[in-house]
Amino acid sequence: MIGNEQKRTFRIALDAMGGDFAPVNEINGALKALEEKEPGLNLEIVLVGNETKLKSIIRRADYSGNDLTIYNASDVVTMDDDPTQVLKKKKDSSLYIGMDLLAKGYVDAFVSAGNTGAVLSTATIILGRIHGVSRPTIASYFPSFRNYPVIVLDVGANIECKPRFLYEFAIMGSIYANQMLGLEHPRVGLLNIGEEETKGTETLQQTYELLKQSQMNFIGNIEGRDVLMASADVVVCDGFTGNVILKFAEGVYSLMKAKFKQYSKKSFIYALMLIIASPVLKKIFKDFDYQKHGGVPILGVKGVVIVGHGKSTPFAIQNMIYKAVEQVKKEVNARIENALNPTAISEQNLKG
Amino acid sequence: MIGNEQKRTFRIALDAMGGDFAPVNEINGALKALEEKEPGLNLEIVLVGNETKLKSIIRRADYSGNDLTIYNASDVVTMDDDPTQVLKKKKDSSLYIGMDLLAKGYVDAFVSAGNTGAVLSTATIILGRIHGVSRPTIASYFPSFRNYPVIVLDVGANIECKPRFLYEFAIMGSIYANQMLGLEHPRVGLLNIGEEETKGTETLQQTYELLKQSQMNFIGNIEGRDVLMASADVVVCDGFTGNVILKFAEGVYSLMKAKFKQYSKKSFIYALMLIIASPVLKKIFKDFDYQKHGGVPILGVKGVVIVGHGKSTPFAIQNMIYKAVEQVKKEVNARIENALNPTAISEQNLKG
Repeated sequence: MIGNEQKRTFRIALDAMGGDFAPVNEINGALKALEEKEPGLNLEIVLVGNETKLKSIIRRADYSGNDLTIYNASDVVTMDDDPTQVLKKKKDSSLYIGMDLLAKGYVDAFVSAGNTGAVLSTATIILGRIHGVSRPTIASYFPSFRNYPVIVLDVGANIECKPRFLYEFAIMGSIYANQMLGLEHPRVGLLNIGEEETKGTETLQQTYELLKQSQMNFIGNIEGRDVLMASADVVVCDGFTGNVILKFAEGVYSLMKAKFKQYSKKSFIYALMLIIASPVLKKIFKDFDYQKHGGVPILGVKGVVIVGHGKSTPFAIQNMIYKAVEQVKKEVNARIENALNPTAISEQNLKG
Repeated sequence: MIGNEQKRTFRIALDAMGGDFAPVNEINGALKALEEKEPGLNLEIVLVGNETKLKSIIRRADYSGNDLTIYNASDVVTMDDDPTQVLKKKKDSSLYIGMDLLAKGYVDAFVSAGNTGAVLSTATIILGRIHGVSRPTIASYFPSFRNYPVIVLDVGANIECKPRFLYEFAIMGSIYANQMLGLEHPRVGLLNIGEEETKGTETLQQTYELLKQSQMNFIGNIEGRDVLMASADVVVCDGFTGNVILKFAEGVYSLMKAKFKQYSKKSFIYALMLIIASPVLKKIFKDFDYQKHGGVPILGVKGVVIVGHGKSTPFAIQNMIYKAVEQVKKEVNARIENALNPTAISEQNLKG
């Protein structure tokens, strides 16, 4: 089994033109991923993008390995492009072509730091939804009191949700947390404005019922403050609420940095105090820096797709590639399909 | 004019039985408010609650002023009471009687650290809504990059909102920020998941239109991260979203405290670093401590009502009393009524 695992090659397509600092950060991230990969991992990266540009940058980097290839794509999807127009007007873009490589099975996963909305809609249409999934979702990592992050979903793919959608998010999130964070029975919490079953909108009340009757480790409603305190491992909410708190948490990081600067300017003593404490403060605030996790998965589509922040650093790109490999290895998508199409096997997965 | 202002007496009813530490914190807060009030302020506090209990505690405090009176109420509304049942079953409660004193004009404002839902529903029914107000709302203070807080409303009174409700929240919030924070043209932002006019639910898109056409200083949609960065002075959202981020922000404070403790235990050096930096860290995190602001206003009812956290300290109670006085002085409610029932005067108010 182990020998078999080692022989397998993981081929990851990287949207080399996607991010704000593409293709430089993308190429450097890919090179770092190849150089620093764990021993025994057979990793191949396919850079999708303008061949001429990519070649000239790689030449400068002086990389000679044969595990980095280029697949030409002459066009680019920008951050301003309408996500729904990619399929009509940008068939030569690195995003479309990279996703197509995944759909055709030429690669095992697709990674992009480009236009998230465009990646989502392209993934949904080109790859299609996993059987049993009503709506693909974007899951995100939140900092928490514990040593591992909290998974919150949806964070923006679906701004209005039916109870069934939220129920499916819970299943997908549970499987993801189980496989990717190694939590045996991930605790699922429904984000609400009070703990009582009767709190919140009718949609949330109905979702509560669905979750209560499920085989998941549902711990009930949780409130905003419980997210960071990690009262649950998987937090389920609609994409509007999830997106607002995701960005609010980003705001916390920005506010802290701004406040530190503000006080340092105010007084030399304050500046000194903050410099002295900076090693530990950096550790504490690192968790609020979303770059750390690299990217987040689009769950519910037939293929492993990781989306990252437009400002992704090479380090973030590197981590996204590793996350993609891990998600392929752990067969997260097959587990989601099993869980949503109940058989004897899926019951186990839900518990697992 | 100044002489006239000085002669006016502000009579504030305090729900002496409301909070988790009632009546001790309430009495101590009232005494502090009287002792430390600004010179020239004629303040009278009416403690509403169990006369025997209150008298025995006040006797121990050895207070001899005649600006503190007691109005007996034999019953108490607890945190577990159903808000809608107060009017039917708790007519002898300090909450009901205190609100009734306000409705009858015996006091100028009512302050409570009790069951927020019960205070809200009691205020709405006993005081009634200001003419032109569809739904009373609870506005809250958020920490921000600036020296003054950001006003967010609604934070839990109305979990689902029509565009008209959100529009009215914007008006009430603008007037409140103008009068209470002294902002000449408060910038109003609509909390959404993107800046574009077409983002978010249909309700938000329609609200955007209403706000754009208004005379308020509407700056458009803002995102979660903009709240803390104070991109707007008044943030408008439905009570579900507002409540989630209010509690999420509370979670930030708890998480920071927990992380500081965690790292201090981890290493002596870290502990030392944090101790050295603690004077400036305390200043930075003070803004996240909701006790600081004391309480928050219920806006849109015919009377000044301030609600506080159940765990309100005497200091918080004291601040709530001062906030109540200021809101009466600034005639916030009359201004809201004018603004929502347009005449030549109200136009001026809207512009701030």
